[in-house]
Amino acid sequence: MTEGKVTPWDVSGTIDYNKLIREFGVEYISAEQKQYLLELAKAKGLQEHIFLRRGLFFAQMDLSEVISAHKAGQSIFLYTGRAPGGSMHLGHLIPFLFTKFLQDLFDCNLYIQFPDDEKFLFKKDLTQSKVDDMCQSDLLDVASFGFNIEKTFIFRNSEFIAHMYPLVLEVSKRLTFSQARNTFGFTNDSNVGMIHYPALQITPTFFERGFCLIPCGIDQNPYFLLQRDFAVKMGFHKNATILNKFLPSLTGPAGKMSASDPSKALLLSDDAATIKKKINKYAYSGGRETLEEHRKFGGNTEIDVSFQWLYYLFEEDDMVIEQIKKNYESGSMLSGEMKALFIDKVNAFFSDFQARRVQCRETNLLRTYMYEGTLAKAMWERTGH
Amino acid sequence: MTEGKVTPWDVSGTIDYNKLIREFGVEYISAEQKQYLLELAKAKGLQEHIFLRRGLFFAQMDLSEVISAHKAGQSIFLYTGRAPGGSMHLGHLIPFLFTKFLQDLFDCNLYIQFPDDEKFLFKKDLTQSKVDDMCQSDLLDVASFGFNIEKTFIFRNSEFIAHMYPLVLEVSKRLTFSQARNTFGFTNDSNVGMIHYPALQITPTFFERGFCLIPCGIDQNPYFLLQRDFAVKMGFHKNATILNKFLPSLTGPAGKMSASDPSKALLLSDDAATIKKKINKYAYSGGRETLEEHRKFGGNTEIDVSFQWLYYLFEEDDMVIEQIKKNYESGSMLSGEMKALFIDKVNAFFSDFQARRVQCRETNLLRTYMYEGTLAKAMWERTGH
Repeated sequence: MTEGKVTPWDVSGTIDYNKLIREFGVEYISAEQKQYLLELAKAKGLQEHIFLRRGLFFAQMDLSEVISAHKAGQSIFLYTGRAPGGSMHLGHLIPFLFTKFLQDLFDCNLYIQFPDDEKFLFKKDLTQSKVDDMCQSDLLDVASFGFNIEKTFIFRNSEFIAHMYPLVLEVSKRLTFSQARNTFGFTNDSNVGMIHYPALQITPTFFERGFCLIPCGIDQNPYFLLQRDFAVKMGFHKNATILNKFLPSLTGPAGKMSASDPSKALLLSDDAATIKKKINKYAYSGGRETLEEHRKFGGNTEIDVSFQWLYYLFEEDDMVIEQIKKNYESGSMLSGEMKALFIDKVNAFFSDFQARRVQCRETNLLRTYMYEGTLAKAMWERTGH
Repeated sequence: MTEGKVTPWDVSGTIDYNKLIREFGVEYISAEQKQYLLELAKAKGLQEHIFLRRGLFFAQMDLSEVISAHKAGQSIFLYTGRAPGGSMHLGHLIPFLFTKFLQDLFDCNLYIQFPDDEKFLFKKDLTQSKVDDMCQSDLLDVASFGFNIEKTFIFRNSEFIAHMYPLVLEVSKRLTFSQARNTFGFTNDSNVGMIHYPALQITPTFFERGFCLIPCGIDQNPYFLLQRDFAVKMGFHKNATILNKFLPSLTGPAGKMSASDPSKALLLSDDAATIKKKINKYAYSGGRETLEEHRKFGGNTEIDVSFQWLYYLFEEDDMVIEQIKKNYESGSMLSGEMKALFIDKVNAFFSDFQARRVQCRETNLLRTYMYEGTLAKAMWERTGH
């Protein structure tokens, strides 16, 4: 197994989260923070989200500031994003599912950035027209999560740029080349668009004067670490993040699920038969080589992809997941049975999601999020100057 | 005298134009090129422009390509710009006066960029609100030169950014950090906006598929030298430039007239009495220490600021300027008399310009150039995507 590598553009290998926490300058979510969020959820009649309970969201930066602000009745807003890729898979859902939970929890505004510019600038052979296509598909996916339609603004950088340009300039004036290079490893061959891009990703943290909380993968934290160097001087609060681990890709426990080989990832657009085939064929198993050995020594849930996804995402019931673990590790449950459980859950989830996506398309909900909802309208009415 | 220094942001000292030509990778305007432009002017009933005849515009890059294109009936367009400074002075007029001549000559579209973003990014203590103020004043000045109202588009980068962003991205993707650094001398402390800015200034060279000719000071040529590295790969022509020397500042023959001390520059907004006072008080003279010496040895027209401006800008008549030169160098004309000629010409010019500026404000001509003229409208209808 190769050592883990985590940058904002690449996550691969086996990830040592203790090391990552140190490297990224963040902290584990504390017991108190977790408790506050779970109790708030309970008080609001929301589910105590499995991502928090089981620790898929595990780290944070300044989450206590946001909690204090919330306790004091101060304004909070959420910000996350999606670099258009054209075929969202199971792993891409994580931040959005949690963002939906957080929006319900805080009943607050949410900004979702589509950095189509970043995608184009960082991928050598990609044309803008190809990025456009990928964007259209992803936008519809993201609009299907059920975010508050009046309090959510989804925007593409290339479309919204004039309206955020004054803020972009304020940010880019405060970010030196050496800061950007030290954080992102730019070289002489990096294009000037790449070097400038961090300003674009940081800018929405200044869309409001309140406290900005960003649910995202830990690989995106470096942008928001930089923001803290100048936020207060700009008259804003430092941003806070709440960060998720990477769930294993279908084919193995290392790295995050990659869409670069869509034949081996569970795509939101896959039908039930395809999902079944992919999981049976590719899902990395913690089972033994032979049935005999499996019955005798049991399977390994730590590396079993199906179990990991059941644990972190699909099987909410603590008793049930505990029983599954026990059965698998004792050898009484076989890999095929574990996969069957996983297949059922994915297909139920996807079929529900796809139905919402169709509804979203038919009701033109995306237009509301992007242009016509209360928040969207207010953002477009904001002039550049 | 200090050795000359010429960068896109700073021109000072005594300038060695032979050296500059080599350093900037451009060539002198050839006799044939000059002849073509002058004959074209004559054929069109235009003046044979003094800037060409006397050599204020003295250098070029690929001007022959533009001339060939014109001979072949291919499309040509002009592009120039003005970094907002808030108080335009005599020296700032040069490129615009010549641009007006070229637009009449080629009867073509003209794009005038106001890089308000550049100004903000490169000046440490400047706020965007201050840049806005400077922009408003300069825009009105630039709109007063009499450009073709249907074929001229004046735009502020911060306002037009969304419409040119796809092109900006194409450019910035092709411009590496090392190219930008080698050209502009960026350091670790340069902000990421500065490093990205060259893409913004290059972008309008791609506003049309035809041949782009850029009249500007030689200090701006580095941007357009970079453009040639990737223009053809992008499916466009390489841009061409036609470049002016710097006229001396009022207080001395070295460097270009600086507006940093407006008390010592001839501002477009100055009234006649102020102009007279400034010239009499500050205009660097090539006269002798005493009247006696002057009568005996004569004055030096090479360093006499009033003569230089008369020669390059105001006194069109070759016989008259020759006579002035002879009289001054022989000692029969005194410095005060030379200044009086200069004062008269500046005041006649400024009074005419100020009247046009008032008319321009009253008729809201700026709005036509920026939003409502034929070209302006077409540019705003161009979508970003």
